[in-house]
Amino acid sequence: MVTAHGAVETPVFMAVGTRATVTGLTPDDLREVRAQVVLGNTYHLMLRPGMETFERVGGIHRFMTWDGPVLTDSGGYQIFSLSADREMSERGAVFRAYTDQRKHMLSPERSIQMQAAIGSDIMMVLDECVDSRADEATVRTAMERTHRWALRSLAARENSAQALFAIAQGGVVRELRKQSAGFLREHPFDGFALGGLAVGDTRSQREDITHFATELLPVERPRYLMGVGTPPDLLLAIAAGVDMFDCVLPTHMGWQGTAFTSTGRVRITRGAHRDADVSLDADCACNTCKNHSRSYLHHLFKSSEPLGPRLLSLHNLHHYNDLMADARGAIEAGAYVAFMRRKLQEIDRHEHGPASDSVDAASV
Amino acid sequence: MVTAHGAVETPVFMAVGTRATVTGLTPDDLREVRAQVVLGNTYHLMLRPGMETFERVGGIHRFMTWDGPVLTDSGGYQIFSLSADREMSERGAVFRAYTDQRKHMLSPERSIQMQAAIGSDIMMVLDECVDSRADEATVRTAMERTHRWALRSLAARENSAQALFAIAQGGVVRELRKQSAGFLREHPFDGFALGGLAVGDTRSQREDITHFATELLPVERPRYLMGVGTPPDLLLAIAAGVDMFDCVLPTHMGWQGTAFTSTGRVRITRGAHRDADVSLDADCACNTCKNHSRSYLHHLFKSSEPLGPRLLSLHNLHHYNDLMADARGAIEAGAYVAFMRRKLQEIDRHEHGPASDSVDAASV
Repeated sequence: MVTAHGAVETPVFMAVGTRATVTGLTPDDLREVRAQVVLGNTYHLMLRPGMETFERVGGIHRFMTWDGPVLTDSGGYQIFSLSADREMSERGAVFRAYTDQRKHMLSPERSIQMQAAIGSDIMMVLDECVDSRADEATVRTAMERTHRWALRSLAARENSAQALFAIAQGGVVRELRKQSAGFLREHPFDGFALGGLAVGDTRSQREDITHFATELLPVERPRYLMGVGTPPDLLLAIAAGVDMFDCVLPTHMGWQGTAFTSTGRVRITRGAHRDADVSLDADCACNTCKNHSRSYLHHLFKSSEPLGPRLLSLHNLHHYNDLMADARGAIEAGAYVAFMRRKLQEIDRHEHGPASDSVDAASV
Repeated sequence: MVTAHGAVETPVFMAVGTRATVTGLTPDDLREVRAQVVLGNTYHLMLRPGMETFERVGGIHRFMTWDGPVLTDSGGYQIFSLSADREMSERGAVFRAYTDQRKHMLSPERSIQMQAAIGSDIMMVLDECVDSRADEATVRTAMERTHRWALRSLAARENSAQALFAIAQGGVVRELRKQSAGFLREHPFDGFALGGLAVGDTRSQREDITHFATELLPVERPRYLMGVGTPPDLLLAIAAGVDMFDCVLPTHMGWQGTAFTSTGRVRITRGAHRDADVSLDADCACNTCKNHSRSYLHHLFKSSEPLGPRLLSLHNLHHYNDLMADARGAIEAGAYVAFMRRKLQEIDRHEHGPASDSVDAASV
């Protein structure tokens, strides 16, 4: 995939940098963990620092000093998940902001205008997100509005050089997923995302719909599964044809003291690591694993020292990017399915075996 | 000054790494800001991770992956300032720990034993600290006990290769300061610190006693003013002959959103910086100033993003180390007093002038 700020190798995991910062990490750190794309969020960035800042500075790349590709989510999911006090209409969403308690408006046009100011390489259309457990009529109505908003976004984009991705909806209803992909693929979007998953659906529903809906999207364009997930989630979705992922999991889990390693998840606060004068992951080449012991990381977390979360989220991002690099290698070698099976078995053995240090993957 | 982990250029500002970490920063960060010495704390480190961890790992250098010099404070000041539930006797201090709520004991011998396990390059003797406003008899009694404890520390050190510094006490009483320096300089300590300042004394008392007491200490050994201070404090103390400093100010102020710059203090959360697409300090070569704008730093603090404090404390340490490097240059050029006067005037103009962004230096 080629963007205005360089090429991206897919499948790719994008580092979540909601507020123009990947929690606690500098752009140098991101390069060190081989992050390819940073994901910003229109909803949060329109509230703070606001459009004027991006217009004045000349966009997010200069604002956060990141010269690689940036994708911005449109804010549709945040309106759904964060704004209790919201009114949805055909025009757009009116919601009360967490920053200044004032009413703000987000429409397809306003979202594109904001993303143009942010200057992301890839913009997302504003979509209407509903709970997967809503009745079919509700899911259909939101999907149809999402389609109309996608066309309004395409018009609002005008001749911007920024790419624009559509978001397919349809909940867990196969017929609706078919309609959504069928409608959107007829229009000149630069890529397609699957939205409306991980919002009330079960794990097996999500896996089923991911496979079903990804195959309905054009194979010659990037296909992006939004907000997913654990390493097994990613491995399975790649088999379904997904090219792009984003998820807060590696950074959030890192800040909470959980590391993803080649031998399963490690909760660094556990007493067993107090005396472990070994690296977090013997198979990892990140700076955390090269320089620091589990014992020291344990001490940092027990002392509530901010260096601990920083070192763990650095490692977790490196781990995710390693997994993607290995997946790309396996795909190029024509051996992806065997690679995936081996990886899934390894993870299952480590995370559910008798010596497991893991929280249940489903509990995340 | 030469230590087991390399030479140190003086005057030197030591980075406070109480719990074997300088808040939020890696050893690579410390090298980047040209930190020469890290200061750990015996009181905190004996409680967590505890002596056994240091014995097993082989000391603090390996534990925190810092190969430069380390100085450890003895814990005397922390017993004074942190332990409400404490009993002092000739033997030592018994106090209740904040970590496990259990009673712990710290004596001169126990402190040396702990510092031997930590493996610091420079150990400090355990002293008895009292409020500067205490009556003269109380200050004298604590000073005399500090002297006896200093000799017990010297004996407990045995033939360790680690350096050992004494701590002169005597509050703000000139006669006691004379006695303390006179007593301690007769014994083979590797360096001498001034303790019992910045504990209830006024600014002018502190400056007066610093000058008076520093001159009483042997000029051929390092002289260390503990826990001080602002840039003007350091400049004045260097003129008095002080070689070593430590203070939480640059890191703590950084975490609270205040930067020390060549044009005075900057409170980055102020609205004026929201639109300031300029570096924090045009005269600074640190990574924060090279890579990030005030506008971005303001955004990070307003968003409570941990990258903000990290970038500001990085800058502040760089600023302090720059000041020390400039002071060393001026001393070598035989022009320290002129340099100090110019710097003090600059700071005064920036921090108390009409366009000042500063909090009152005395309010820190």
